Amino acid sequence: MDKKFYNIGFVGVGVMGKSMARNLMKEGHTLHVYNRTKAKAEELLQEGAVWHDSPAEIAAQADVVITMVGYPRDVEETYFGEQGLLKHARAGTVFIDMTTSSPTLAARIGEAAVAAGCSALDAPVSGGDIGAREARLSIMVGGDAETFARMEPLLKAMGTNVVHQGAAGAGQHTKMCNQIAIASNMMGVVEAIRYAEKAGLDPKTVLQSIESGAAGSWSLSNLVPRMLQGDFAPGFYVKHFIKDMGIALQSAEEMGLELYGLPLAKKLYEQLAAEGGGDLGTQALYKLYK
Amino acid sequence: MDKKFYNIGFVGVGVMGKSMARNLMKEGHTLHVYNRTKAKAEELLQEGAVWHDSPAEIAAQADVVITMVGYPRDVEETYFGEQGLLKHARAGTVFIDMTTSSPTLAARIGEAAVAAGCSALDAPVSGGDIGAREARLSIMVGGDAETFARMEPLLKAMGTNVVHQGAAGAGQHTKMCNQIAIASNMMGVVEAIRYAEKAGLDPKTVLQSIESGAAGSWSLSNLVPRMLQGDFAPGFYVKHFIKDMGIALQSAEEMGLELYGLPLAKKLYEQLAAEGGGDLGTQALYKLYK
Repeated sequence: MDKKFYNIGFVGVGVMGKSMARNLMKEGHTLHVYNRTKAKAEELLQEGAVWHDSPAEIAAQADVVITMVGYPRDVEETYFGEQGLLKHARAGTVFIDMTTSSPTLAARIGEAAVAAGCSALDAPVSGGDIGAREARLSIMVGGDAETFARMEPLLKAMGTNVVHQGAAGAGQHTKMCNQIAIASNMMGVVEAIRYAEKAGLDPKTVLQSIESGAAGSWSLSNLVPRMLQGDFAPGFYVKHFIKDMGIALQSAEEMGLELYGLPLAKKLYEQLAAEGGGDLGTQALYKLYK
Repeated sequence: MDKKFYNIGFVGVGVMGKSMARNLMKEGHTLHVYNRTKAKAEELLQEGAVWHDSPAEIAAQADVVITMVGYPRDVEETYFGEQGLLKHARAGTVFIDMTTSSPTLAARIGEAAVAAGCSALDAPVSGGDIGAREARLSIMVGGDAETFARMEPLLKAMGTNVVHQGAAGAGQHTKMCNQIAIASNMMGVVEAIRYAEKAGLDPKTVLQSIESGAAGSWSLSNLVPRMLQGDFAPGFYVKHFIKDMGIALQSAEEMGLELYGLPLAKKLYEQLAAEGGGDLGTQALYKLYK
């Protein structure tokens, strides 16, 4: 099969978006970029990306538009605003929102895209800045199967684990499952390590006993060493985690699902943020337990 | 180094103890067994183990006594009761309590053993019935280093991951860390899967997206498939998990450490037990979320 080269619009080239856009350029696609703060796009522009002054201008140029912005309100503005993508969409454009955002909003974008003669995928990711850089993201995709199949090669330029999860919103819902599982586990990991310290154990020796068994988890093996070194630099920001837990909780409420661990974890992280920890990494939950 | 063959007393040959005792016999040691219900010892007796009518009689015969009973009160009775091990201990005996029990009780046994001219290790395990059968347990050991070094070959006949964690009680404390990490993670795992179902996703497909990343854990990969198959058979009993969480919580309180996820998880599991789930496996937490 011949490889297709696209004019790809990319809205939001922060830490994650920049690496993802770069991986698409490496595959030979033409990149059209817009970012609220232009300075963050400079590196990509030097590497050959084309600057545009608004999502509207991006929409006028691109066959495929990828968005990777901050909060659901940014996603909403990017798609539905006056200078937004949908108001200026050309028929046939594929929109892919890779922001972690609301499943309900993803479904709305999906419908509006179809109404505009376009199609849309929601495709949030996990794997962090390193995964983005090394094109090893896990990409969770919602949207119609035909669009997914058509866009799969593009997504595989950014990730190694690209899975179609269902209709519009299903990608966001899957990402919520991811964040829900992490949220409560973070309490368990931190409580285990704080208990170990309080009991006079060496937490590193404790890890030797417990990390390969039923207590084992990615967070236990990867975040505890950082906690113990006092390294609270953000792999994933506390403030963004709180955003995600808020989306998950609201979404659960809309579905009539009662959760217990998630609201508790959210409360603890909000307390951490209130104490000034919002710009730290999620492993800083360790600081809340004294 | 010449291999040493011991007279080993084994008190408590239930599902776990039976397999562990058998692995010691395979190494050529002589096994002296006592169990509250004699019938459970029959298999081992047919394989060559010697029956005794009380812990006291075991103490009179053995160089090393291993205990693997149910609750801390059983451990206390086995060691400190009228027919208990310590009242009838011969000088030089090594006692190894492999029950998951109270760190404070482990420290008391350690002191009493020394007072009787003996020594003691606390050495609780993780790895379940399969780990016990295949001699692949993780064994977390507290007690003095010399006794640990002397007993390490015996412990390695039962487990692959044998780690000395510190003084008397440190083994139990380490096991508490293990249970604390599991407790909150179980909420996260179940909540993620219930959310997936409610959102109309296929939880197995969701696992494909999330289990190898930051949400990954032993419980997510190993217990979710059982939940989805409606298999709630005990790998690890809800009632025993509640016991362990109770010990951990009391121990944390004694140390002045405030925990949040653990008491919530304990409350949910107690609710599950109140609804008749005590004899199910821990993955039955899934049934509590509707």
